[in-house]
Amino acid sequence: MHRLTVCYGRPQDPAAFDAHYRDVHRPLAEKIPGLQSVRLGACEGIPAPDGTSTEAPYYLVAELEFADAATLAAALSSPEGAAAAGDLENFATGGVSLFVQRDLV
Amino acid sequence: MHRLTVCYGRPQDPAAFDAHYRDVHRPLAEKIPGLQSVRLGACEGIPAPDGTSTEAPYYLVAELEFADAATLAAALSSPEGAAAAGDLENFATGGVSLFVQRDLV
Repeated sequence: MHRLTVCYGRPQDPAAFDAHYRDVHRPLAEKIPGLQSVRLGACEGIPAPDGTSTEAPYYLVAELEFADAATLAAALSSPEGAAAAGDLENFATGGVSLFVQRDLV
Repeated sequence: MHRLTVCYGRPQDPAAFDAHYRDVHRPLAEKIPGLQSVRLGACEGIPAPDGTSTEAPYYLVAELEFADAATLAAALSSPEGAAAAGDLENFATGGVSLFVQRDLV
């Protein structure tokens, strides 16, 4: 399994980010050919025993799963992949960092 | 589900890192109370149509799953959690960034 991991920095307007992600970006991403599943995580800092926590380096992390490296590469170069990538500038005001994870057993 | 995400930067000696991770660190981490599963991903850059790829920001990403926030916090403050955290300096020569992901549905 190959995962495209998309790490979003904290946006200027989290409520607007959330609405755009839900109503526009996620539907665009779900059209990407070969996409098997999406997993979303809200980022938090590391909790300490005294109740404080570190600052979270990201706001949201999305993991998009594909069967293998070739399927992921084809997805990224598809029109649907380009549409989703092109939409990032419309809402990812806190920046975005992307990388691939190849599952290790 | 709450995930502790551990992002390792590229180490000075990847072979030594891999051996320490497999033989020392992973066994330490697997003793952490409340840990339900571990998922490991080898990081790669984003592939481009011309066969090149971006540079991967990390070398290895480990995701440790716990049932909820309280279980994760207890795990981090346990002796086993402290032992695993204390071992990081023994092999994570490329640095390490930790954060928590709270699963969104």
